[in-house]
Amino acid sequence: MRTCLLYFKPMGKAVEVEKGTNLMDAVRKAGIFLDAPCGGKGLCGKCRVKVIEGEHRYQPSHLISRQEEESGIRLACLTTVEGDMTVELAQTVSAGDIIVEDITSDTTKKSRVKKAVHVLRDSGIRIQNSFRTVEMKIKKPTLDDNIPDFERIIRELNPLMESKRLNCSVELLRKIPRVIREAAFDVNLVLREDEKNYEIMDITMQKGRKIYGLCVDIGTTTVAACLVDLYTGEIEASANSGNLQMQYGADVISRIIHSTKPGGLERLHDAIVQGTVNKLIERMMEKRDCRPEDIVCSVFAGNTTMTHLFLGVPAENIRLEPYIPAFRNSPVFRAKDIALDINPNAPVYVLPNVASYVGGDIVSGVLASGLWNSDEVTLFIDLGTNGELVLGNREWMVACACSAGPAFEGGDISCGMRAAPGAIDGVKIHEKTFIPSIHTVANAKPAGICGSGIIDLIAQMFFSGIIDGKGKIKQSSNSCRIRFNQAAGCYEYLLVPAKDTVNGRDIVINEIDIDNFLRAKGAVYSGIRTLLNSVGLSMEDIKKVIVAGGIGQNLDIENSVQIGLLPDIDRARFEFIGNSSLTGAYLCLISDEARQKARQIADLITYIELSADPTYMEEFVSACFLPHTDISLFPSVKHVYETKFTSSEFFSPYEV
Amino acid sequence: MRTCLLYFKPMGKAVEVEKGTNLMDAVRKAGIFLDAPCGGKGLCGKCRVKVIEGEHRYQPSHLISRQEEESGIRLACLTTVEGDMTVELAQTVSAGDIIVEDITSDTTKKSRVKKAVHVLRDSGIRIQNSFRTVEMKIKKPTLDDNIPDFERIIRELNPLMESKRLNCSVELLRKIPRVIREAAFDVNLVLREDEKNYEIMDITMQKGRKIYGLCVDIGTTTVAACLVDLYTGEIEASANSGNLQMQYGADVISRIIHSTKPGGLERLHDAIVQGTVNKLIERMMEKRDCRPEDIVCSVFAGNTTMTHLFLGVPAENIRLEPYIPAFRNSPVFRAKDIALDINPNAPVYVLPNVASYVGGDIVSGVLASGLWNSDEVTLFIDLGTNGELVLGNREWMVACACSAGPAFEGGDISCGMRAAPGAIDGVKIHEKTFIPSIHTVANAKPAGICGSGIIDLIAQMFFSGIIDGKGKIKQSSNSCRIRFNQAAGCYEYLLVPAKDTVNGRDIVINEIDIDNFLRAKGAVYSGIRTLLNSVGLSMEDIKKVIVAGGIGQNLDIENSVQIGLLPDIDRARFEFIGNSSLTGAYLCLISDEARQKARQIADLITYIELSADPTYMEEFVSACFLPHTDISLFPSVKHVYETKFTSSEFFSPYEV
Repeated sequence: MRTCLLYFKPMGKAVEVEKGTNLMDAVRKAGIFLDAPCGGKGLCGKCRVKVIEGEHRYQPSHLISRQEEESGIRLACLTTVEGDMTVELAQTVSAGDIIVEDITSDTTKKSRVKKAVHVLRDSGIRIQNSFRTVEMKIKKPTLDDNIPDFERIIRELNPLMESKRLNCSVELLRKIPRVIREAAFDVNLVLREDEKNYEIMDITMQKGRKIYGLCVDIGTTTVAACLVDLYTGEIEASANSGNLQMQYGADVISRIIHSTKPGGLERLHDAIVQGTVNKLIERMMEKRDCRPEDIVCSVFAGNTTMTHLFLGVPAENIRLEPYIPAFRNSPVFRAKDIALDINPNAPVYVLPNVASYVGGDIVSGVLASGLWNSDEVTLFIDLGTNGELVLGNREWMVACACSAGPAFEGGDISCGMRAAPGAIDGVKIHEKTFIPSIHTVANAKPAGICGSGIIDLIAQMFFSGIIDGKGKIKQSSNSCRIRFNQAAGCYEYLLVPAKDTVNGRDIVINEIDIDNFLRAKGAVYSGIRTLLNSVGLSMEDIKKVIVAGGIGQNLDIENSVQIGLLPDIDRARFEFIGNSSLTGAYLCLISDEARQKARQIADLITYIELSADPTYMEEFVSACFLPHTDISLFPSVKHVYETKFTSSEFFSPYEV
Repeated sequence: MRTCLLYFKPMGKAVEVEKGTNLMDAVRKAGIFLDAPCGGKGLCGKCRVKVIEGEHRYQPSHLISRQEEESGIRLACLTTVEGDMTVELAQTVSAGDIIVEDITSDTTKKSRVKKAVHVLRDSGIRIQNSFRTVEMKIKKPTLDDNIPDFERIIRELNPLMESKRLNCSVELLRKIPRVIREAAFDVNLVLREDEKNYEIMDITMQKGRKIYGLCVDIGTTTVAACLVDLYTGEIEASANSGNLQMQYGADVISRIIHSTKPGGLERLHDAIVQGTVNKLIERMMEKRDCRPEDIVCSVFAGNTTMTHLFLGVPAENIRLEPYIPAFRNSPVFRAKDIALDINPNAPVYVLPNVASYVGGDIVSGVLASGLWNSDEVTLFIDLGTNGELVLGNREWMVACACSAGPAFEGGDISCGMRAAPGAIDGVKIHEKTFIPSIHTVANAKPAGICGSGIIDLIAQMFFSGIIDGKGKIKQSSNSCRIRFNQAAGCYEYLLVPAKDTVNGRDIVINEIDIDNFLRAKGAVYSGIRTLLNSVGLSMEDIKKVIVAGGIGQNLDIENSVQIGLLPDIDRARFEFIGNSSLTGAYLCLISDEARQKARQIADLITYIELSADPTYMEEFVSACFLPHTDISLFPSVKHVYETKFTSSEFFSPYEV
């Protein structure tokens, strides 16, 4: 087989691959991150590269214009290497560039965490974990007092241990003789207590040492972590980044598909553990004078697929009927079992899943939100790469997952992107001229549109009459912003012209994008309706709506209601709680009883499989309009639109 | 640094080493086993090699005659490589050649094991372990019954589990989804139960599978193992070999010294785990249709140093005053923690040590011997590489270790060897002609003398008047068997002339050898006396003497008493129990309660440090005579010798 040499600009990286290799695989082999939301199926167009020279074959794509094709632009996933090549990659968003909410970044966020702790404490849950450090002067051995080192430690610990046994790993036992002598029998022990045993987690000569815990929210798209002082509960450092698994697909389905390829599961496991979490740990340790051995406990929250891949457990049955995960409550493993770079014996707690598409991140969020302790009927909405809903109070909870896809994170949208610098996250459109004013993340030159920007954009397009209730662009308009896209075969709206964008390409939204988005928001709204139906309640019975997840950060609540994503109820009932999955993981780190509570929550939640619900499909279809086919559900919106649209425009007859 | 190429005959192995390398290290680097009882200090002469050609430096040794030196014979440990060399190695005894007692090899031995089981059972100890296999038809998942795989197993197990939790390793969790589907939800589980949890040890589609346990006696010299059916308790296979650590020294002290060299501890750990135990496991698995995963439990008994090195725990403080081991009761580790080639999650139970020189092998032996359950005062003697003694009954036990060295295994004796084919294990000497008749292991051509042979030889030499009570060869004799050895500077007795031996060298015993042996037997006898003194008892109070250990196999009880190794009491009180350390490990494998009993035994035994006992030194000096300076201690021997010797010969005055 012939070997081809590939050279990648502007990184200056080179790699040798066999002739016939897929170009996307070659880019990965060179260690370059290339986003691939669709998982390499040629659907999303996010893996655009420019072939400078070199023999190759490629499949044409409607995502690439004739002119671009002539200039060498290709989709890497549809290109096959046939000889030595030089390839230019765009300055793509790397996993590390994605903006993720830091639960410690400002006072509001910090006070949310504090509030969550208070809610726990007020409900009688002890904020106490099973780790402690013990400074210990061990009696020096003599000929008359010659008991072994390990039993000598037990003897000193006896008043503490009662009838419990003392354990440790073999690595630690190997360390004891040297450390206690170097320390002249004056040592510091890190101990973990459980029902039957004490365990030595570390032994050092260092005095006054701190011990840390690690909590991590493993999102499909983003990963956020905190380093916590296990004595004080203080968050001492935090870090976040994209999930390096992104290069194998944006959503859980494409990840699962990748996991079934040879070596795929191992690659995904490595991408999250080595490629993402261990890097976050390293960054946090640098901020503090902290060694891996000092991090003695860890808690992880993620959706069902993410927790499977994080543990390296096959996830394929999640996607195949009847949709069976491998586990709900994972046994407690040790850091060394999954190659986490912390104390090798640190327990790894993974928050329990509810079902295939309602995972530990939701259980964690429900714990952090206080819903489990609420008298009032509360709706918990997590809008991330998918949408998950929990409805209930302290007596009962029902939950479902909406197949919203990655629309709220810029996926499935031609110019969509994640919330990185340059992402348009806010839009206003002049009602007359259709000229937009935009806001971008970090005020950078526009590069694409992220979730909150898309909500604003669609609301504004509808509001200004650019699109109708079905999301179709009204061809009657003669604004130069509206035009027909030959390649896509539909109309599009020009948001930012090429000259003003970072990559020299127009930022547009077309009818296919809008349709994708309407399906996503329809999935969420119809999910809410189906949950309510399942317990015989109506929208007005919802006394509180808690919005969690990355989308919540810049979400415009009014726009979200007006497009029919969120229920049209008193706006004062809405509350944003940010990354509640991370907050819940934090709670489970500082409190053993909180972890038990999370298990109880997971057991209490009744999962509703939407696809099996007879009313769901009808609800979904009705919710794919702007805002809904039943305008009576949106009383506050109704009068706004009635002044804007003729009834025929508004009630676009679905039957047609 | 110059590299030298070494070629070893007759193996035909070659190795490259740096100039200046010690030849013994070079032999080991080539992967060739070279016995080195003294640990490479030039004392034992067991590492003789013949340099055929090549530049080298060497230290002369009295262990090599001028003639041998001229023919190229060297001690490898005293030779330094200076250039390319060709070296001939004798057909040395390899670790695998050593004859070790197989506790299943004949009816007597099997009945000993059965008896030990009965003693346990009769004392109310349940013969029951915590492993079981469960054949289970799991309900197939449907859309309506979509709980995860792991929870599905828990549901089936619920009647069994009561309120216990189910655990497994992450590797096992990764296996579950595939195995249960391949098996069409009809699986076989291997479960382990403890106080709080059940653990899945394995899951397969195989029906009617057997599960096995492994028990191993790790001797300083020899290692013996059994593969046991955990359901029936049947010993299904056994295997034994030398301890590959032998190449780093014969006794525990030289091993400990080696362990403090750079990389030494890891080499010793590897030698016992990879080089010895894993090889035994492989051999046993070949005999049965058994996979590593089927071996789900393991129990190890060894002396304190051996258990440390087996776990890779630093042992150096065992040898330094105040002689502190790292542990007495090791925590329970898993097979994967120490690279044992069985089920990676199989627990590794190590029998508890009593003190630095009374280890888990003795605790195991005491368990197997029934001493712990005896009404009568019983003496337990283990004669292996060292001698350990336990005196007591069900109420109390005292123990000590005798610095007997490796004399009972042929160490410290110029022509000594271990009990391999060709070892002389029985001797009779004609009283008049001084001509010996000998017996060898496997009736092979004589190669050296092993422990039981040395006892016979010395008894017979004394009996026939060749040596006096101090062990000195009587020069008055004019037998051609008795001659002066110039190199050693003392007299020697020719046992087998060169023409009749396997290596063409005379097999002799000289006065230095005899002196070494008398010190060894003196150490044991004075140890017995000191133990008795410590509890205010006399020899006659010993109602039973249990002799364990490798030496016991061919030990002539009469000769052993007559030379003053064993107490002169009614011969009917002596009992041989063979490898009781292995038998005890077997009991701990088949019975969880036996393991608890072993812990209690270890706690009950009071260790007497002989070197700290004020009466010991005097006892030792008196016991280094044949049979003893106080002949009244040997009434049955007295009249025999009185007819043979003049009183001056017999009572060689120590004071002179």
